Amino acid sequence: MTDESHFADRDALDEKIDESRVFAPKFDDTGLIPVVVTDADNGQLLMVAYMNREALKKTIDTGEGWYWSRSRQEFWRKGATSGHTQKVVEIRTDCDQDVIQLIVEQTGAACHTNRRSCFYRIVKKGDGFRLEFAGD
Amino acid sequence: MTDESHFADRDALDEKIDESRVFAPKFDDTGLIPVVVTDADNGQLLMVAYMNREALKKTIDTGEGWYWSRSRQEFWRKGATSGHTQKVVEIRTDCDQDVIQLIVEQTGAACHTNRRSCFYRIVKKGDGFRLEFAGD
Repeated sequence: MTDESHFADRDALDEKIDESRVFAPKFDDTGLIPVVVTDADNGQLLMVAYMNREALKKTIDTGEGWYWSRSRQEFWRKGATSGHTQKVVEIRTDCDQDVIQLIVEQTGAACHTNRRSCFYRIVKKGDGFRLEFAGD
Repeated sequence: MTDESHFADRDALDEKIDESRVFAPKFDDTGLIPVVVTDADNGQLLMVAYMNREALKKTIDTGEGWYWSRSRQEFWRKGATSGHTQKVVEIRTDCDQDVIQLIVEQTGAACHTNRRSCFYRIVKKGDGFRLEFAGD
């Protein structure tokens, strides 16, 4: 079984994609799929990152969050340097299978700023648009 | 004030982007930014869609979820035909400002399949990978 055979060939799928029981993730033109990571404890949105086919395979095989860094152009095991690893509890996909949801037990901070979630700033309308830090 | 002046010019920003109080969303090469929509009631992940600059402006100005449909190449007010509108409670952005989070009061189903959330299928490893419907 080659890596390529891990997930179904989407183009060959003759089922209605949004009712299919076949996992056929849709990678974009650059070979990536966005991944929304949520907290297994409370459902909180933690971060958004990207996987290529191999990162998705590594994630499934190891049970830990693996991504493709678009800026560094390399694989990235979450927490490899920070210790803030992610234990995968469940993987989901959306109706048209072009987004992955990773439900994780997050050790420490998901964000590189050392905050639990990357979404710590709220957009406020006023004289222009300002960002307010959650908890301010 | 032109539409262009609504959000800050990211390239002109001299602050550290992840500690900035200036809203400078990063649109990709095609002018889009991914939007993660969560439920104001319980934090549940509902859907992921895309906005261009004008859709983000419409969302802020009207307090309802507006998106850009990549498949139809047109603006799309969520619920315009289904009645499943989204009242925006809060807008957030992430550390590097290349993702938007929309926290909404969702009327009815967020998903076009008439399910509350688009993420109704779980990836199961076995002989290949299958999708199991949540609640199965």
